[in-house]
Amino acid sequence: MSPTARLMDGTALARQIVEQAAERAAALTERTGQAPCLATVLVGEDPASETYVRMKRNRCEKAGIRSRHVALPAATTTGELVDTLTALSQDPEVHGILLQHPVGPHIDERAAFEAIAPEKDVDGVTYHSFATMSFGAEGFASCTPGGILRLLDHYGVEPAGKHAVVVGRSAILGKPVGMLLLGRNATVTYCHSRTTDLAAHTRQADILIAAVGRPRLLTADHIKPGAVVIDAGYNPGNIGDVDFDSAATRASLITPVPGGVGPMTIATLLTQTVDAAARQLKGA
Amino acid sequence: MSPTARLMDGTALARQIVEQAAERAAALTERTGQAPCLATVLVGEDPASETYVRMKRNRCEKAGIRSRHVALPAATTTGELVDTLTALSQDPEVHGILLQHPVGPHIDERAAFEAIAPEKDVDGVTYHSFATMSFGAEGFASCTPGGILRLLDHYGVEPAGKHAVVVGRSAILGKPVGMLLLGRNATVTYCHSRTTDLAAHTRQADILIAAVGRPRLLTADHIKPGAVVIDAGYNPGNIGDVDFDSAATRASLITPVPGGVGPMTIATLLTQTVDAAARQLKGA
Repeated sequence: MSPTARLMDGTALARQIVEQAAERAAALTERTGQAPCLATVLVGEDPASETYVRMKRNRCEKAGIRSRHVALPAATTTGELVDTLTALSQDPEVHGILLQHPVGPHIDERAAFEAIAPEKDVDGVTYHSFATMSFGAEGFASCTPGGILRLLDHYGVEPAGKHAVVVGRSAILGKPVGMLLLGRNATVTYCHSRTTDLAAHTRQADILIAAVGRPRLLTADHIKPGAVVIDAGYNPGNIGDVDFDSAATRASLITPVPGGVGPMTIATLLTQTVDAAARQLKGA
Repeated sequence: MSPTARLMDGTALARQIVEQAAERAAALTERTGQAPCLATVLVGEDPASETYVRMKRNRCEKAGIRSRHVALPAATTTGELVDTLTALSQDPEVHGILLQHPVGPHIDERAAFEAIAPEKDVDGVTYHSFATMSFGAEGFASCTPGGILRLLDHYGVEPAGKHAVVVGRSAILGKPVGMLLLGRNATVTYCHSRTTDLAAHTRQADILIAAVGRPRLLTADHIKPGAVVIDAGYNPGNIGDVDFDSAATRASLITPVPGGVGPMTIATLLTQTVDAAARQLKGA
């Protein structure tokens, strides 16, 4: 079978969204004299994490968003990290905070996340942000789920009344993307490693979200003809959770890896940083 | 067809659980000189709400849990209610707080809930409690979802690997019960008013949770033979969301209404109040 699916071009859409964020950042800077500022916090010297943070900071700079980097040694304690994040939460010159994951096994990551003030949680990692996503209240989305929803909207995929199946249940990807889709009136199923007969579930999906981190787990056999397939998996070597060549023979719309969900994640981070700055500088 | 389902007797199980809570409350009172104390807050004079609160307070008293009732006039503002709940959150003599729903349309109920300190949120209504339920972290369950999980455990229903279908997506019932089941390794589907072909989904359920508030919405046609059916619906006249007589011909286990989920909700409230007091009085 030959591929029939249309590509969902995250790179192109992210470019548009970042341009809009840059325009808003420039207007805000002009009006208030302060540029939006994202604080990035990195614990240790993991090369992949350093690369991610550098990339995010580069994108910020290009969009007219200042970034302030805090590099902490690998031996940083939970208490020290909490103190750092609390100080950034209270600093009026910082509008958004990103704690790069992972922080190392000796740190209580949840305690660290919860030290981020909800109004600066532009990465959408706090309990508060998860709940606001789940209840349709005002707040920040986790960046990948937020990016996925933008991608669906851009391609005219209406979740209401559709069956969305999410494979994966992580705190910042699987769980929140399901909650966002539920808020948009999809019927939502969560599958995971303990699911019995995964394919029987995924084959019912009108919208299939792969968010599990297992290379090429989902093939054509998992996909209902005409489904919309979003691959949010990231595995070493830029391999997604979806076996693209096979899946593209069944899906109607599909995200490539790379160039699908990934760029949308960063675009959401930048947009939310400008949103945060706009709210915090409202009276300025 | 004649009924084949075994009844899940919430009344009997709740009695056992309340007895255990009473024993722990007595031991705690003996050890610390302070009885666990639940503050109940009621806004306005809705007769049904007054009855609910009175019933909860009566159950507390019988279990050796003090209750302190705060009755506020219907004209109470959001700010006044928030102030009341903040003061109770800071009062060392109060260990748990229950804000009786509904509070009236002029009040921002969410703002009120968020004024309840997480460590006193024994009714499980805050963002924090929703997130801890969702992420398997330490915290309080919303009482009905927590009661449902206890009921499943008592009857030996293991959620892992099963398909649980939740009909309803409210903030304190549908959404959290799905998250608790997901945390117990069920595959979880959320259905609701916008679901297309509800019966096609519910007929796949090994565990079916009705939590939608529509009288007798679910009949035998919605139920897979042998399913476990939990009716958490409450509708006027003590009618559940499940058409019991018809459903009981298909289900293997089923909760009656009344006498199923209802008593478990109150048992969970009492248990969590004692839990809260035990933590807060730890050093006493």
